[in-house]
Amino acid sequence: MTDTLSPDLLDRMNAYWRAANYLSVGQIYLRDNALLEAPLTLEHIKPRLLGHWGTTTGLNFLYVHLNRLIVEHDLDMIYIIGPGHGGPGIVAHTYLEGSYTELYPAIERNRGGMQRLFRQFSWPGGIPSHVAPETPGSIHEGGELGYSLAHAYGAAFDNPDLVVACVIGDGEAETGPLAASWHSNKFLNPARDGAVLPILHLNGFKIANPTVLARISRQELTDLLRGYGHEPFFVEGDDPALVHQQLAATLDIVLEKIRAIQAAARMGGEELERPRWPMIVFRTPKGWTGPKEVDGKPVEGTWRAHQVPIADFKNPEHLTQLEAWMRSYKPEELFDGDGKLIEELAALAPTGHRRMGSNPHANGGLREPLAMPRFRDHAVRVAAPGSVRGEATRVLGGFLRDVMKLSLSAANLRLFGPDETASNRLNAVYDVSGKVWMAAVEPVDENLSTSGRVMEVLSEHLCQGWLEGYLLTGRHGFFSCYEAFIHIVDSMVNQHAKWLKVSAKIPWRKPIASLNYLLTSHVWRQDHNGLSHQDPGFIDHIANKKADVARIYLPPDANCLLSVADHCLRSRGYINLIVAGKQPEWQWLNIDDAVVHCAAGAGIWQWASDEGESDVVMACAGDVPTVEALAATMLLRDYVPDIRIRVVNVIDLMVLEPQSEHPHGLSDEDFDDLFTPDKPVIFAFHGYPAMIHKLTYRRRNHANIHVRGYKEEGTTTTPFDMVVLNNLDRYQLALDAITRIPRLKDRVAVEIARYWTTMERHKLYVAEHGEDMPEVRDWRWER
Amino acid sequence: MTDTLSPDLLDRMNAYWRAANYLSVGQIYLRDNALLEAPLTLEHIKPRLLGHWGTTTGLNFLYVHLNRLIVEHDLDMIYIIGPGHGGPGIVAHTYLEGSYTELYPAIERNRGGMQRLFRQFSWPGGIPSHVAPETPGSIHEGGELGYSLAHAYGAAFDNPDLVVACVIGDGEAETGPLAASWHSNKFLNPARDGAVLPILHLNGFKIANPTVLARISRQELTDLLRGYGHEPFFVEGDDPALVHQQLAATLDIVLEKIRAIQAAARMGGEELERPRWPMIVFRTPKGWTGPKEVDGKPVEGTWRAHQVPIADFKNPEHLTQLEAWMRSYKPEELFDGDGKLIEELAALAPTGHRRMGSNPHANGGLREPLAMPRFRDHAVRVAAPGSVRGEATRVLGGFLRDVMKLSLSAANLRLFGPDETASNRLNAVYDVSGKVWMAAVEPVDENLSTSGRVMEVLSEHLCQGWLEGYLLTGRHGFFSCYEAFIHIVDSMVNQHAKWLKVSAKIPWRKPIASLNYLLTSHVWRQDHNGLSHQDPGFIDHIANKKADVARIYLPPDANCLLSVADHCLRSRGYINLIVAGKQPEWQWLNIDDAVVHCAAGAGIWQWASDEGESDVVMACAGDVPTVEALAATMLLRDYVPDIRIRVVNVIDLMVLEPQSEHPHGLSDEDFDDLFTPDKPVIFAFHGYPAMIHKLTYRRRNHANIHVRGYKEEGTTTTPFDMVVLNNLDRYQLALDAITRIPRLKDRVAVEIARYWTTMERHKLYVAEHGEDMPEVRDWRWER
Repeated sequence: MTDTLSPDLLDRMNAYWRAANYLSVGQIYLRDNALLEAPLTLEHIKPRLLGHWGTTTGLNFLYVHLNRLIVEHDLDMIYIIGPGHGGPGIVAHTYLEGSYTELYPAIERNRGGMQRLFRQFSWPGGIPSHVAPETPGSIHEGGELGYSLAHAYGAAFDNPDLVVACVIGDGEAETGPLAASWHSNKFLNPARDGAVLPILHLNGFKIANPTVLARISRQELTDLLRGYGHEPFFVEGDDPALVHQQLAATLDIVLEKIRAIQAAARMGGEELERPRWPMIVFRTPKGWTGPKEVDGKPVEGTWRAHQVPIADFKNPEHLTQLEAWMRSYKPEELFDGDGKLIEELAALAPTGHRRMGSNPHANGGLREPLAMPRFRDHAVRVAAPGSVRGEATRVLGGFLRDVMKLSLSAANLRLFGPDETASNRLNAVYDVSGKVWMAAVEPVDENLSTSGRVMEVLSEHLCQGWLEGYLLTGRHGFFSCYEAFIHIVDSMVNQHAKWLKVSAKIPWRKPIASLNYLLTSHVWRQDHNGLSHQDPGFIDHIANKKADVARIYLPPDANCLLSVADHCLRSRGYINLIVAGKQPEWQWLNIDDAVVHCAAGAGIWQWASDEGESDVVMACAGDVPTVEALAATMLLRDYVPDIRIRVVNVIDLMVLEPQSEHPHGLSDEDFDDLFTPDKPVIFAFHGYPAMIHKLTYRRRNHANIHVRGYKEEGTTTTPFDMVVLNNLDRYQLALDAITRIPRLKDRVAVEIARYWTTMERHKLYVAEHGEDMPEVRDWRWER
Repeated sequence: MTDTLSPDLLDRMNAYWRAANYLSVGQIYLRDNALLEAPLTLEHIKPRLLGHWGTTTGLNFLYVHLNRLIVEHDLDMIYIIGPGHGGPGIVAHTYLEGSYTELYPAIERNRGGMQRLFRQFSWPGGIPSHVAPETPGSIHEGGELGYSLAHAYGAAFDNPDLVVACVIGDGEAETGPLAASWHSNKFLNPARDGAVLPILHLNGFKIANPTVLARISRQELTDLLRGYGHEPFFVEGDDPALVHQQLAATLDIVLEKIRAIQAAARMGGEELERPRWPMIVFRTPKGWTGPKEVDGKPVEGTWRAHQVPIADFKNPEHLTQLEAWMRSYKPEELFDGDGKLIEELAALAPTGHRRMGSNPHANGGLREPLAMPRFRDHAVRVAAPGSVRGEATRVLGGFLRDVMKLSLSAANLRLFGPDETASNRLNAVYDVSGKVWMAAVEPVDENLSTSGRVMEVLSEHLCQGWLEGYLLTGRHGFFSCYEAFIHIVDSMVNQHAKWLKVSAKIPWRKPIASLNYLLTSHVWRQDHNGLSHQDPGFIDHIANKKADVARIYLPPDANCLLSVADHCLRSRGYINLIVAGKQPEWQWLNIDDAVVHCAAGAGIWQWASDEGESDVVMACAGDVPTVEALAATMLLRDYVPDIRIRVVNVIDLMVLEPQSEHPHGLSDEDFDDLFTPDKPVIFAFHGYPAMIHKLTYRRRNHANIHVRGYKEEGTTTTPFDMVVLNNLDRYQLALDAITRIPRLKDRVAVEIARYWTTMERHKLYVAEHGEDMPEVRDWRWER
């Protein structure tokens, strides 16, 4: 046994731990008699017992020890808790150190405050049972397991002085995202970035099962962690005194190693090598210090300690047992007569911003806005609509390069993508910053750099997790992804959206930068990869989020994409979804018109429309649907020269929703002005057609809106055949229009015949030549 | 260098490999001149060049060697290819061995057939560029990376004689799901299950980046793989002759080890221990045997070899280079004058069902239906609606136990869940089968067993991947999950749905059992875990799938859940989504009525409705909404004694869609009969309200349908407060009804006042007592 801690310090640290444990149990159980000044009765106990005891004491133990480290070394440290279920423990600690009361003055550090602290936990109108946005010092919920380590790395990037202590539950460690996160150390530069200290908490059990990592041999676990690139230090035991000394000694060693790694890397000179970062394996009993047995069954050290270990207080023995358990922490030694933590213990905690519950990285919101260049400098010159082709994402890449360049000194922007930045044609950013890579390099590699600001790894989970951690600590980011595969992070997006929604109502949480997605290589241009790469459903996923969080943009060309991207990068608190293709396409709007169009969110394209009352509205949202809608317009004018068409383009999908449902929603009057109150609307949409109906069903003209979009038809074929397979092609749209214009009812049979002939010709041509017919390949807009 | 292979065999195997490589390049490039009988010209080359060359030759090399192993040991082996992009290689091999032509007779094994083989690849109307349902012998697409190893384990479970060779790409290895999958060996029983042989293919590069596992040291990689519980064997090189000998020798060793492990485990007697399974690390150059350089830049062995290494045939040098490349395989030595593989080489392949392209495990569809017990034996006795409470999923657990029991001899059913089978109250299954667990066991563990048929791991990805592999090889399964966290597998579900959709049209792919989800611990009963656990959006996700695949059920009580589960377990080819709560709730239908109701999918609950013309339809879908709708009905009768209410319950959500869109859709007539053509409909829905509008917008009475559902409001609170926060509560529903019944317009002000008074009382009560008001807690149905 080491003696890192003097007997006195050990005693006091242990007492501090008892205080946190006492407050944790109190939160789970008590609504009254917080200091146990009277014998415990049923009336003191909450009617609904909620919470997760099992993980809490371990988290509390670590908090006490990290506090010592912070105080002794004046550390800038935050604490990310994978087992977010241990909410009461973190609340207890932030209360003990004073952070809690500063943010929530009603929860005073006295008897009444403690009572309110207990009562509010998992109480209606109170605080959630998990670590949550309401919890001081947290950037991580932990209700959905698997993202702690990725969040920790995201927080550490570009924060050279920060140490992120990250507790990984052994349940969480079984998830895919967590398993992938270990390799994040190949992307962290010790000279430029802060440190992550992973603490694998082996408490051995999940809700009802042992955990895998707790049931493999010590050697196998060591191999695994070394294979992840770490040097593991084991701290194991169930005797608090011994574990205190062990953990204290280990933390000293680990911090020394971190400091040595950083010092070596920061000396400059020789080339940076990836170090072997230390980490801790912390093996303590689940439900440590809780009841050993309940109703004759073992609880401490088993899965039975996971949630509320003693329940059903109709059994009077349980009441006695709970009281004994709580009194075992000796609250009378910990709190003064007024219920305040005694000074001797309170002195153990760090002060001010060094307290983990008050660290500005976790509570401070956006550190500084992005310095933004002029996006207009990247505008495509569009002399007339449809007069020039351009690759929208390549144009955006130029703009992003300039944004990146301006951000280099502040070091507050990163680009994220799963091996696709160049494939998505954003590679201009490499002119100013490469891809970060700390593993080995070979001569054929390109654009790799230990100081790169582009993050590429073949894991959407890691991209998302890193980005979330980066944003939540006040910086900026941009995530580009193949459209179909962004579904991989659906569930992570859910949690981030919930975090944003709740945070917006917490005054001390300042706004953070928006989470910006560019989905490209999209459904209509995955004709070469086939069905597995074709899925536009992320639009549906985001549209279900709260209106104050969700924004969806479908820029039809490069200039609109520039304007939208500029807006999104400047915005705060949203999830911005941008969908735009990377292939060369016709450009429609000059930059001035694009800015006006994007600001409006939707508009009549007068240059493509006829004056006066329309026969039909050709509406479109998305780049490929816009091309098809405009081509259909040309066909219609050819078929029926006196036809009167209005073309409406929608770029901000949420304008379609009623104003009452979304702040971007058009008033009914404006909607009718755009789409008419009574004319047929043929709507060519990028995604699943039902989305448009979902957004517009309350609108006056809804019954006349006929939508075409993706209907899960696709394979490896030609680009035009993709729209044909899904009935989104120009011929179909033209036919849709004619069959819905009453004055053309005599023409319908003729047009149907023409349609089938055209389709026949299409099929024959494509089957024979393996590419699209010249008239669609070479099509261009003419008016 | 070992000499496992005689010089002659080595030569022939290498020639076989050249043949597969030749056919792979041919598929990517040629539409004519398949045998290069004439000098190559531009006319022979496809106009669109698609495909992924980089991974193909490595996959081909392995195929040749696995063939040798199969022949020498009469192995039952399937081949799962993580890098599914290598489609042309697998197509080439199944063509060479004859499987392809047997399934696609037009692709004959002669000059014309080869030409069609080349032309169809990535050609409109032809075959996809990836390994796909169209590919013989495959159960894995590989377009979305990360699931190969989980699929491999799923296939191996309960297939004791099967060896699943699983190639894991080093790009794929960076994904979360794959990283988690390595630990699957803790769930595979060598006595009962087949073997998985993981082959980590380190070709070093992704689209544009090196891979992590190729750039850590050999020692670190070894540690990692040993940490995963494997014994890694390295096969590395770029000289084919050397690599042939190395791989052959290694495969012999590895197979011997697998056989030894199985023999030891199958001897019986002593207790089973988890063995250290062998695996192979196969390090060969990306784009091996392809062009070394193109346009002066290195290609072979770099990321530039990822897709089509030579393109842009406007450059005449490229044509020369392609021809030289193809001729380097010496096709004239491999194929006879008619274009058929020469007999000497053809003899290397296995025959019949031993060919990997013809193995029945991968092509055979459903092996045998489940033996089903009578679900009626588990019915809850419901003397009258609302006269008894029951826990729906616990009742289902009893039924599942019996299904499991009947399936034990056939060993063709497993239950999957992320640590939640007991939490979801299905624990009755443990009476007949435990949870499979091959890691260490301690005395406090319960229900663990090396031969268990319940699969629990804290990874929804693994549950889903194992289940998919199990179903795709002809067995049955059932996945229970917390509702919010099923989004973790959104993307996997997409790919499975696409696979099912395509497979249904491939005659030689027989139907497989449906993928059955039970989502429980659902949004309305996650009041204790709070917002992170509340998300009903998986319904939206599934509803976007093809109508021939997607089924969504919301049973309102235990008997309906029994009937639905019975139906789903018997069905084939669907994704069945069942959402049902686990908490004690009132039961509505006796088993006979439940069966009728489930078969209809929706119906008027006469016992709750008034005769004659209705003032309002109270509609509901989902267990909690049903309770609230019925409670609202009672309130309404109290407020307005002469009100005439119709109660409609929807159990099969897809009945709401028009018949033209979904086979379950009601005819417009039937829809109007249920919901009336013109009365107000107050619809209480389990999920996001817009879903109901999306399904019903074409219905005559749509404008009168007013939906209440989840709107992302929630926290840790009481169950009833959850419905209040989302305006789904009985008081709101009653108010909704009254404000929409024209003849009650004089009552509206009174009811609004009453509503606000009630809400005030609710808030006060809950804030004070921390639990729900007695009148909602103790509510029961009375008529």
